Amino acid sequence: MTHTPGPRFTPLAQSLPATVPFVGPETQERARGRPFAARLGANESAFGPSPRAVAAMAEAATGAWMYGDPESHDLRAALAAHHRVGMENVIVGEGIDGLLGYLVRLLVAPGDTVVTSAGAYPTFNYHVAGFGGTLHAVPYRDDHEDPQALLDMARAVDAKAIYLANPDNPMGSWHAAGVITDMIDALPPGCLLLLDEAYIELAPDGTAPEIAPDDPRVIRLRTFSKARGLAGARVGYGIAAPGLISAFGKVRNHFGMSRVSQAAALAALQDSDHLAKVVAKTAAARTRIAEIGAAHGLRALPSATNFVTLDCGGDGARAKAILEALIARDIFVRMPFVAPQDRCIRISCGTPEMLDLLAERLPDALAAATKP
Amino acid sequence: MTHTPGPRFTPLAQSLPATVPFVGPETQERARGRPFAARLGANESAFGPSPRAVAAMAEAATGAWMYGDPESHDLRAALAAHHRVGMENVIVGEGIDGLLGYLVRLLVAPGDTVVTSAGAYPTFNYHVAGFGGTLHAVPYRDDHEDPQALLDMARAVDAKAIYLANPDNPMGSWHAAGVITDMIDALPPGCLLLLDEAYIELAPDGTAPEIAPDDPRVIRLRTFSKARGLAGARVGYGIAAPGLISAFGKVRNHFGMSRVSQAAALAALQDSDHLAKVVAKTAAARTRIAEIGAAHGLRALPSATNFVTLDCGGDGARAKAILEALIARDIFVRMPFVAPQDRCIRISCGTPEMLDLLAERLPDALAAATKP
Repeated sequence: MTHTPGPRFTPLAQSLPATVPFVGPETQERARGRPFAARLGANESAFGPSPRAVAAMAEAATGAWMYGDPESHDLRAALAAHHRVGMENVIVGEGIDGLLGYLVRLLVAPGDTVVTSAGAYPTFNYHVAGFGGTLHAVPYRDDHEDPQALLDMARAVDAKAIYLANPDNPMGSWHAAGVITDMIDALPPGCLLLLDEAYIELAPDGTAPEIAPDDPRVIRLRTFSKARGLAGARVGYGIAAPGLISAFGKVRNHFGMSRVSQAAALAALQDSDHLAKVVAKTAAARTRIAEIGAAHGLRALPSATNFVTLDCGGDGARAKAILEALIARDIFVRMPFVAPQDRCIRISCGTPEMLDLLAERLPDALAAATKP
Repeated sequence: MTHTPGPRFTPLAQSLPATVPFVGPETQERARGRPFAARLGANESAFGPSPRAVAAMAEAATGAWMYGDPESHDLRAALAAHHRVGMENVIVGEGIDGLLGYLVRLLVAPGDTVVTSAGAYPTFNYHVAGFGGTLHAVPYRDDHEDPQALLDMARAVDAKAIYLANPDNPMGSWHAAGVITDMIDALPPGCLLLLDEAYIELAPDGTAPEIAPDDPRVIRLRTFSKARGLAGARVGYGIAAPGLISAFGKVRNHFGMSRVSQAAALAALQDSDHLAKVVAKTAAARTRIAEIGAAHGLRALPSATNFVTLDCGGDGARAKAILEALIARDIFVRMPFVAPQDRCIRISCGTPEMLDLLAERLPDALAAATKP
């Protein structure tokens, strides 16, 4: 029998592991053979999207035979007005994940360096590996990303970009706006700050810095997946100087946006009442999660996001045992990957009903996790 | 004033032009200052998606706060059953455009060669340029893509892949299944056939070849954008050997699929009645477009797709003048980019009402286009 060779992958593609940034809850449900009772692991907004967004999707569905506008013109115009920037400052893409992929592709050739925090958003790391970049990670400091350490490392390795999430995932911590503006001013020349503000609508006033829209040193990344409740629609956007925004046009999937999702995002953006309700419900859920944790000796870290990170008071093994005991009790949660943050578990802000289930099942999970 | 440098793009990114594979109809509408009366240029299905898909989208909208399943498990399972292959043979992605991007990324490093036909799908060329590949294009033969010429060129330049659409866009022509299987058997070792079957549901029986699902020499690409009427949902899929399918997991945007679109595609796949109706309506529209053309001396090329390519009987300048005259009369159509195919215009299968408008306005457009 003759040998039939397969495709000739690039050396880079051959070198990549078949990793997945996150295992989805559905995958876990299939492996477990039953659904989760409370979906509290992916920092989705259990309070749902705006009813106006739901209506917009239903209305757009009949028109789904048409490709979406590859410029996302109407959505970008609305975002530009919302943020008081020009349309030339706004790029819309398939979630922040998609935009991060394009950004890394534009900036990182094999061997180029970028900087992040050890245990920060793994999808950024996935893209860096995927384009052959070299990732340098600095530790968190007191459960916060450490701007000075990031800057020092960027200078030391001549990094093309720094990734920083403010507020941070998975710790929920945040820096005041002034810390971020100081960081931008201290960036080494030619080092772009990728400022992931996925959770910013849920953070205290004074967290989002003023950034001149033409500032070439930073791109802010926003999403409809968190406070806007549209994770499943896949709409993220970036705000940056026109030169960077237009560069996306060289590599992006121009017809990659769902027309239905464009309509959903536009409607969601216009529903500030719904956003205010979600912010309030999220704050209440944060308090409730902290109370549930405190009742059982798990300390809640302060959070500016739609999740609460609970310090389990031990090492990674203890937190993992608690996580697995919760999952065994049909409560989907996640946890940080890296020590010492991996002493914690991370619980998304569910509805009161979901948090009732958490309160009911956590004691038993803790007991199971502490069995000798 | 100190110099503030912008981001340091990769040399490849710097070298790329800010091109767009296609200008969308919405962009043209904004430039014109008024909407098109008949949208007949993007080979969308004017007959719309399945009512079951529309209902599925409306139902999924309330759950859009949840990320889509990154494995697209249920959709892949249904596709696997539909095509009598294993789930490990199926990849779902953000349209064929998205899958082509991933494929080129997996295969093409700077300097690597691929082969296509001169004037075939430009989004493939866009991705090849975007990853630094070298594209070799061979001419069409009698308005058909030329398998032997593609094979000869692939052998001559040691190509990693050949792109072939069957049926073809923009000419509407097609090869019988046996031609494709012969082509697969004649592929040089290590050259992957990217078989774009976007229009296959609209082609005569005997156009889609039997391909063993584990054949490592070919990937077939399918979509919900054409006969299934879901261009705006962005759902494409590939069928190939497991080794190639799993390689997508190294580079794809794992959470890139809209949950609403996954639901739409699953419902659409199950509505074979709707598909049959669309196939019949499309065939009727092809006949009608051919009649409209013939009444004014424009010869219709045979089509196995949801569009008809009309030979305008002159050179590219004449076809372009007719195209522009139609656009000026609010009829959105497109045309091939490359001679001698650019003697034609390409008209999508619209509803009877849309084609009434075409019939009404074509004579005047032709008169305007032939003015001295």
